[in-house]
Amino acid sequence: MRKKYLFAPGPTPVPERALADMALPIIHHRAPEYSAVLQEVRDNLKYLFQTKNEVLIFTSSGTGAMEGCVSNLLSAGDHALAIRGGKFGERWYDICKAYSINVSAIDVEWGHAVTVSQIKDALEKDPEIKAVYIQASETSTGAFYPVKEIAEIVSARENTILIVDAITALGVVDIPQDEWRIDVVVTGSQKALMLPPGLAFASLNDKAWSFVEQSSLPKYYFNFKKEKKSLEKNQNVYTPNVQLIIGLREVLREIKEEGLEHVFKRHASLANATRKAVQALGLKLYVVDKPSDALTAVYAPYGIDAGKITKLIREKYGITIAGGQDAVKGKIFRIAHLGYFGCFDIITVISALEAVLKELGYKFEQGAGLKAAQEALFGK
Amino acid sequence: MRKKYLFAPGPTPVPERALADMALPIIHHRAPEYSAVLQEVRDNLKYLFQTKNEVLIFTSSGTGAMEGCVSNLLSAGDHALAIRGGKFGERWYDICKAYSINVSAIDVEWGHAVTVSQIKDALEKDPEIKAVYIQASETSTGAFYPVKEIAEIVSARENTILIVDAITALGVVDIPQDEWRIDVVVTGSQKALMLPPGLAFASLNDKAWSFVEQSSLPKYYFNFKKEKKSLEKNQNVYTPNVQLIIGLREVLREIKEEGLEHVFKRHASLANATRKAVQALGLKLYVVDKPSDALTAVYAPYGIDAGKITKLIREKYGITIAGGQDAVKGKIFRIAHLGYFGCFDIITVISALEAVLKELGYKFEQGAGLKAAQEALFGK
Repeated sequence: MRKKYLFAPGPTPVPERALADMALPIIHHRAPEYSAVLQEVRDNLKYLFQTKNEVLIFTSSGTGAMEGCVSNLLSAGDHALAIRGGKFGERWYDICKAYSINVSAIDVEWGHAVTVSQIKDALEKDPEIKAVYIQASETSTGAFYPVKEIAEIVSARENTILIVDAITALGVVDIPQDEWRIDVVVTGSQKALMLPPGLAFASLNDKAWSFVEQSSLPKYYFNFKKEKKSLEKNQNVYTPNVQLIIGLREVLREIKEEGLEHVFKRHASLANATRKAVQALGLKLYVVDKPSDALTAVYAPYGIDAGKITKLIREKYGITIAGGQDAVKGKIFRIAHLGYFGCFDIITVISALEAVLKELGYKFEQGAGLKAAQEALFGK
Repeated sequence: MRKKYLFAPGPTPVPERALADMALPIIHHRAPEYSAVLQEVRDNLKYLFQTKNEVLIFTSSGTGAMEGCVSNLLSAGDHALAIRGGKFGERWYDICKAYSINVSAIDVEWGHAVTVSQIKDALEKDPEIKAVYIQASETSTGAFYPVKEIAEIVSARENTILIVDAITALGVVDIPQDEWRIDVVVTGSQKALMLPPGLAFASLNDKAWSFVEQSSLPKYYFNFKKEKKSLEKNQNVYTPNVQLIIGLREVLREIKEEGLEHVFKRHASLANATRKAVQALGLKLYVVDKPSDALTAVYAPYGIDAGKITKLIREKYGITIAGGQDAVKGKIFRIAHLGYFGCFDIITVISALEAVLKELGYKFEQGAGLKAAQEALFGK
């Protein structure tokens, strides 16, 4: 017997009821039966995004919707700003480059968050910037960006919009799109939405739609206008991933049943327990400023390659956590706790981490991590 | 109790074993367990495409790969040719237009196939044409195009490539890519591959790859070069739809076990029985020249709206067949028989069709369709 556990920041575990629903015979995407599903999904996506916008649905990974946020909102030569503080900020930058956008970057040391004044300065330096592309939570580092404050600045500017990659943030922490006046919010299915990868979402407010009207970049599959028009008739433009939409109905029901407020509290509690536990083991958190509640990035102990930790914990205990990417490969490991996670999942991963650290020769008081997690979760 | 049956040309029924596999807990796309799956899938896709090419895999509907076949192969202003003989030929044309391709069209009456001499003439008229975009089987009409003969013409030209949308043809009829020297073959998951929608595939030969090297159009998510490079290291570039890749492993095993030759024979037999049956009911086939073995398009009887047939057969008998699209809406209905279909499925749909036609007041000898299907399937 070999039980398996998924603690990577996407794909995340899928609730059993959603898996069961998705194993039912496939239905046709133009049949009335599907219409009812899509209608419910559209309504509940608005609840999740805390918006009145029609939330666009694409059959693709999150990157597809990110690309659409460039090709649908801008034209070649337009000025844009991206934050390079991790792999996904770099992706915004690269997509802009691919579409001949005049993109400038704020380079932020990995593991740190961009500051509000950095954004302010950049916008003052180049008043022509039409779009600011940021992450809410930079998945590669676990840093959380000051979305609310950045939205305040950008929403005050008539000719600039803010696009937030909330792929590992939506459904984890409170990001009320309408209240904060965020122009575009993007997410994917395989994170807090607890589904397999394969769906991407984008929610645009009226200001963002006015940018769509001006855009002259080529686009076809990720055509926001066409998708909106079609969704308003309760249809997808192209054959959607019916199976995932069926799963989406179930996970959105579960989120609604739990209530967003509780969902956020649960994630905060799990994140807090994880942080306390690894620190009690004498390990150092990678993100100092403001760690995301979606995942906890941790430095490997001195002299131990993080890759050894992720390898051993998987091979010996069937647990998948993530290593560091690019610049921090081998230096950090990342434990995700977003989506279908409860308190005993944290206890499990900390127990396994202790076992692995012991085997790799790291010196610490056994059980110290578990004790800290236990106290954080259930009170001292 | 209400049994449901899917006879639409995508999505098509999913084999139970694939549904069960896809209901297993999700695995991580960078874990060794996934690598083994991807390796097997890559090998078996080559078997399906009858090619030595690395078959690219995208998390999207088929249209995404179609778009990639424009954005990766051409540059703005390049000359291209598309065949407008149905909805999907129009899609090639529209994608080219979206990317500022100088595209010309051969307009073919819906329900008919483009002829080899039409292609020849078009290429002679405009020797600058770099890419010819065709369907193998035009899903909206059920017409089958002379792929082999068109490939002969195009492969003889040094500076022109042929791109075949084989979305409802691959795994239905014999389209040996390498033998016929087809430069690019595209397909999707929800047709003969018997999976839910959500994966698209493109297989490029060396000649096509040399076009990719010249292309200057913007692209990001559907970047063929990046995907190939990554696949050769047995990884996907972006988070793939792991669930569908797991299902893909199973359906490719089933196809290989049955053997392509038998798969083609089975489809030919089912298509033949369907055609014979509807004709025995006094109905007229929509495609005269060369109907596709993927689906049978049929004129509704005089005085009966095809929409009534599709509606009644669904509401009363739980059977989803397709109506006509765009120009032939209300005039034809389409019965698909591609993928996970056996002889008794044809018997079922013909039985239901007879029941519905009777109820709608059409005069015919009851059982005549069933008798014709039975004789076609099992011999007189």
